Amino acid sequence: MKESGRKQGALSPCAACKLLRRRCAEDCVFAPYFPPDEPHKFASVHKVFGASNVNKMLQELPEHQRRDAVSSMVYEANARVRDPVYGCVGAISSLQQQIHSLQTQLAAAQAEVVHMRMRQFSSSSNTGGAMDMAVDQANMGESLWSC
Amino acid sequence: MKESGRKQGALSPCAACKLLRRRCAEDCVFAPYFPPDEPHKFASVHKVFGASNVNKMLQELPEHQRRDAVSSMVYEANARVRDPVYGCVGAISSLQQQIHSLQTQLAAAQAEVVHMRMRQFSSSSNTGGAMDMAVDQANMGESLWSC
Repeated sequence: MKESGRKQGALSPCAACKLLRRRCAEDCVFAPYFPPDEPHKFASVHKVFGASNVNKMLQELPEHQRRDAVSSMVYEANARVRDPVYGCVGAISSLQQQIHSLQTQLAAAQAEVVHMRMRQFSSSSNTGGAMDMAVDQANMGESLWSC
Repeated sequence: MKESGRKQGALSPCAACKLLRRRCAEDCVFAPYFPPDEPHKFASVHKVFGASNVNKMLQELPEHQRRDAVSSMVYEANARVRDPVYGCVGAISSLQQQIHSLQTQLAAAQAEVVHMRMRQFSSSSNTGGAMDMAVDQANMGESLWSC
């Protein structure tokens, strides 16, 4: 079946209408976001969400939010195609683990700073200049906790 | 319309068959994961992915992976219902920002440790005991970089 162009003079229907083998109307809701030269984008969202759901979700959004919605749906659909069990929830879980590991490393580094300050303070008390060191530590504390 | 039970003696069809108003067969692919007392779970995945896509995705997976797949689909669907523009890609983006912020804080804390070590070393060189301090620093280094 030969598809007609999206508008007069346009050469191809959008990737969505091409895949769905339907006429690409001038006001096609998919056309602005699924150009004919990127067929894989629509193929993924169609496989995962279904064309009718994508259509419905786009119709329910104001036009200025549709591009972002399409990008996030394409991202989510690609993740689900790559990993049919966890989809992009797998990425969320791995990012949460990374956050946990960074929080542990940060706590260790901060504990090390506190430990060194105490050593520094006690050694400066023994060798004199304790007051200068205390002022110094207050400054360092400010830079540490403000980060 | 009254629905028949999933199996002989069962009181209710699963949440999916109830919503789709169809007979819940004994080998229903949805029944193990969408119990009748949690109707919202199926309602979300149906709204976002469509029942037929969920069915297809489950059929393509071995049984031992289906529970995890359903959990991740429910999570994803709920995120998309809450945030129709970004869905769970919004969560990914916010976790990535959190990682960036933790990496910055960690780099600052580690730089502070290095800075303090250098001060400690130079002050101990001036007051004696430089050798002891260097050994001390080597030990601290080990504990910092091993975290």
